Parts: sequence; C-alpha cells; structure tokens
Amino acid sequence: MGEFDLIRRYFQRPAVAGVEVGVGDDCAVLVPTPGARWLVSSDMLVEGRHFLSTVDPVRLGHKALAVNLSDLAACGATPRGFTLALALPRVDEAWLAGFSRGLLALADAHACPLIGGDTTQGPLNLCITVFGEAPPGRALLRGGAQVGDEIWVSGRLGDARLALEVFRGTVAVDGAGFEEVRAAMELPTPRVALGQALRGIATAAIDVSDGLLGDLGHILAASNVGARIDVDALPRSAVLAAQPPALQRECLMAGGDDYELVFTTPAGAQLPDMGVALTRIGVIEAEPGLRVVDALGAAVEHGLCSFDHFKS
Amino acid sequence: MGEFDLIRRYFQRPAVAGVEVGVGDDCAVLVPTPGARWLVSSDMLVEGRHFLSTVDPVRLGHKALAVNLSDLAACGATPRGFTLALALPRVDEAWLAGFSRGLLALADAHACPLIGGDTTQGPLNLCITVFGEAPPGRALLRGGAQVGDEIWVSGRLGDARLALEVFRGTVAVDGAGFEEVRAAMELPTPRVALGQALRGIATAAIDVSDGLLGDLGHILAASNVGARIDVDALPRSAVLAAQPPALQRECLMAGGDDYELVFTTPAGAQLPDMGVALTRIGVIEAEPGLRVVDALGAAVEHGLCSFDHFKS
Repeated sequence: MGEFDLIRRYFQRPAVAGVEVGVGDDCAVLVPTPGARWLVSSDMLVEGRHFLSTVDPVRLGHKALAVNLSDLAACGATPRGFTLALALPRVDEAWLAGFSRGLLALADAHACPLIGGDTTQGPLNLCITVFGEAPPGRALLRGGAQVGDEIWVSGRLGDARLALEVFRGTVAVDGAGFEEVRAAMELPTPRVALGQALRGIATAAIDVSDGLLGDLGHILAASNVGARIDVDALPRSAVLAAQPPALQRECLMAGGDDYELVFTTPAGAQLPDMGVALTRIGVIEAEPGLRVVDALGAAVEHGLCSFDHFKS
Repeated sequence: MGEFDLIRRYFQRPAVAGVEVGVGDDCAVLVPTPGARWLVSSDMLVEGRHFLSTVDPVRLGHKALAVNLSDLAACGATPRGFTLALALPRVDEAWLAGFSRGLLALADAHACPLIGGDTTQGPLNLCITVFGEAPPGRALLRGGAQVGDEIWVSGRLGDARLALEVFRGTVAVDGAGFEEVRAAMELPTPRVALGQALRGIATAAIDVSDGLLGDLGHILAASNVGARIDVDALPRSAVLAAQPPALQRECLMAGGDDYELVFTTPAGAQLPDMGVALTRIGVIEAEPGLRVVDALGAAVEHGLCSFDHFKS
C-alpha cells in the first residue's frame, strides 16, 4: 500500500461544516468564526519517550490527539481541527487501523476534524497540530494569576506516573488497580468543556503535562507571583492513595502526563459544574517561589522538578 | 541546557503584529484577518529520507520552512505563522544555532513568525505546520483545471534530483555546476508571491514536491481531465541540459524536491511578472491520462512515477 492509498483508507474523512477543503490538497481551508481569535498548539510524540512500543494503537491514537486537545483546553479554546504528521517505520495495516480508530473517535467526540497532514517513512513519530477558537481577550493564559487567587486542579493527579513506575518494574500494583492507572496513562481525558467553561472565571490556566510543580511554576513565572499548595489536598485515586507516602507525593507533584487543568480563580469565584471534580489545592501569594505544605501546615521539601525532555 | 532554555535561546522571538501570544503558552493566539479563509499545511522531514545527515544546518532550517511555505504558495495563501516540532537526538548548540538562523531568516523574509511548537528527544525529525490566509473562494486548489487550459511551471525543474544523484554517486558534475544544483536541492525558493499573484488567474495549482508527472497527475485527477505536455519545453538549467537526455528527462519529470508551482490558466491569460520565469509546458485535454511528447510531437514513454514515501 502506498502513501496516498494509506491516507485515503485510514485518514480521509467526509467534509464537515467549517472545513471548505480537508485532507487531499496542498492546504486545508477553514472558515474562521467571525471575530474569534485563532489558537494553535503542536505536540510531537516519540516512541520510547512519550509512549511504550507495546501500547495498544487504539489507545495511542486517542492519546496523541488528547494531549493536543488538552493544550486547547488549557487556553479555553473551542476545537476546530487538527493536522497529523506521521513517520512510520513500515506500513502496518493492523496498527494503522487501530491508531486511526482511536484518533478519529476522540476527534469526533470533540467535533475536531482531521484536516490534513503528512505521512513518511522513518522512526515512529507522531506530530499533531490542533486549531481552536476563543473570543478576543477570553483565552486562558498563564500570566493572569493574582495574589490571593485560589489554585484549583481538575480530576486526579499521579495515576499516569504510577502506571509508568509499574511498567518500569519499580512498583507492583494488582490487576484491577493497574488497569485503572494504566487507563489514566494511556487514555487521558482532555478537559475541553471545562476549559471553555472557565473563560472569564479563571485568571490563569495550564494543563499538567510535565508535572504539577513544574507546570504551576510556569503560571507563577508568567504571572510574577508565588504560591503555597497543600500536598495532602492533592486529589488522588484510591490506588495511588494505597502507595507509600513518598511515592504518592512524587507521582502527585512531579508525575506529569496527567492532562488535568491547573487554574487560578479569584477567591470565592463560582465554578462551573462540568461533571469533573475540582479541588482547591492552594493559594497565590506575593512572595516568589512555590511553598509546599502538608495538611498540618508543615513545610514539605520538593527538590522534585518537572519533566524536561533534555534532562532526565 | 534544558528544553525551556533551548526554546528561549534559539526559537523565542519578539512579538509581531497579528500574534497576540507567541512561543511560551499552551497555545499561540492569532488575530485572523476579518473575512479571510484560514489555510493550513503540515510537513514532516526525516533525516536520511528528506535530507542528508551531512547537510549544513543553516540550509536545513531554510528548507524545512521552505517546503511548507511552498504549500501555502501552491494555494495562493499569504503566510501568517508556523509551528515547529523538533525531535533531536541530543542538544547540539552549534547545530541549533545554524538551524534556527536559516529557519528564522526565511520566516522573516516572508513575515511568517514562529508562534509555537514542541521540542523533545528522539531520532532527528522536523515537523512544521504553516498557517496562511486567502480571501473566500480565492484559494488555488487542484480541482479547477478546464479542458483547453494552458499548463505552466515556474522556475526550473530537475536540479534538486540531479544533485541527489551526485550525492548518490551515480553522476559526476563539476564544482561550480554541483554547487548550483546543490543549492537548488538545499535552498529551494518557495514561490509565495507568485502564488498570491495567481489568485483569480490560475484555475488549478500544486507545488512540485514529488515530481512533475505525479504532482500534475493530482491536478488531473482532482479536475477530472487529462493533459499533454512537451518534455522538451520543460525549463532546465545549463547544468542539467549538459547531462545525457535520459537523465535529464528523469530529473525533469520525476525528480521532485523542486518546489516550483505547476498551474493551469485559461488560454491567453495575462500572467503576472513576479521576477520568476514562467514556462508553458502543455495543455489540458478532455481525454483522461497524461501524454508526454517531445518537440516534434512524438510520444515519450513515461513509466516514471512520482515519489511515494512507502514505495521506492
């Protein structure tokens, strides 16, 4: 099967509203919503770095788009479409069928059509660029946190990292518990509707991809503020809560791959009920730096830093 | 040097008009031109497949963006920005300095700012997604060629392929000649201004990335027409013209990597003078298929097909 057959069979979709030209010309042509701003994000996933070679291709297709939709969510954007560039060592139809099924199911769920891309031969590499829209001045950015704001996080943290430690062989977790944390790692849920609902409410937002402390640190740096968070308040699954305290803290604070939203709001702000748990984990302070305390208010050491692709 | 320092040092640029948020948040935020359509294209370049490991990084940076700008040119779009996702085996500052210099020089020349992206560790892979704009209904597409239209090509064809054959050791070309065809391969010129000038004139267009016959074939298929072209009319450099006729024809018709525009116009249309040679190479016909003839009108065999990343 050649490159063009591959694209037709697995990635060409019927036309949808707002997409004048999709897969199959030199460019895709989209109709922007009048007055909206245009938001763009790009993520590259490399085998062995962002996913294990043994991962179910259906789940990999889901995750490749999910991590990109999560960036739109962090900015409160409404998804409009995405491109996929794919380097494959060889044409493996079973893999492609699974990958495209997982990818396009999530795309359909978010009305975010595949509009173009590229395929080539090479070491397995997935690069997705997503496009979304937000009204002028309403995109959620990192730089708006104010002293006194509350810090919130959606969902639960740390399960993806716990699953990775099981794969690495450093931790043992039993069958049902492992399947639960493995799903957190392989099938993350981008908080797209929550992000849009936070427009005009959140003062700053980011998604947790590299680890809570590092990602919150980006908000603090961009907003020129500090923060205090309560490690015991961090939301966690029963599976993670059954692990030794030191491991729990590492997974919660430095785990990454969570794709939950961390955001700040003015104290007492009314938060939207989007069917996902929201947990208040701390407060923005004037003093620079990030102070981690436990439920008793005692300082917690955190030499932990977030994931850096060229340091680890 | 970590991931974030790398981005700051080599890829972060001052803000420009129309870009509300550039590199450094979860998404870039762009201000679309009211009423314009939004055009998107994505290309992935893999070491050993799209470029030689020995290529000057300055030239590689140029080419990585040039091949993407060429897709915008083929659609007649005005560039608005691009994202870069980069997998690197290791942080090599000399390489990064050269690569970013070549990349950003071409970006500046086309007022097409780098607005975001991703960096990670992995086998060398460059994925660029470009964004452009065109007025509604004015994007150049593949499907508009009409019977009787003239077929035109910009610039010259075949030099990039000739240079590749020299690198492969199948052909010998002397110093100055080699530098000339090597520049065609490593420093292609995207025909961005020409593409925009052809809005409302060309009935169909594509850029020559995989080879003239294959790329023209996409126009014929999308337009549901056939064509006749004169191989002796194909524009070529003096260096290529000094090669054996069979090699010339292969480079001209199936070479690829040319990044010239092939487009169709109504017979006798007034073409814009954009400082690049335009050559009439054939005519659109009702009979399906592509007929290649020589200057005397004799049929030329062309078992040659265009480049396919999974067949070669």
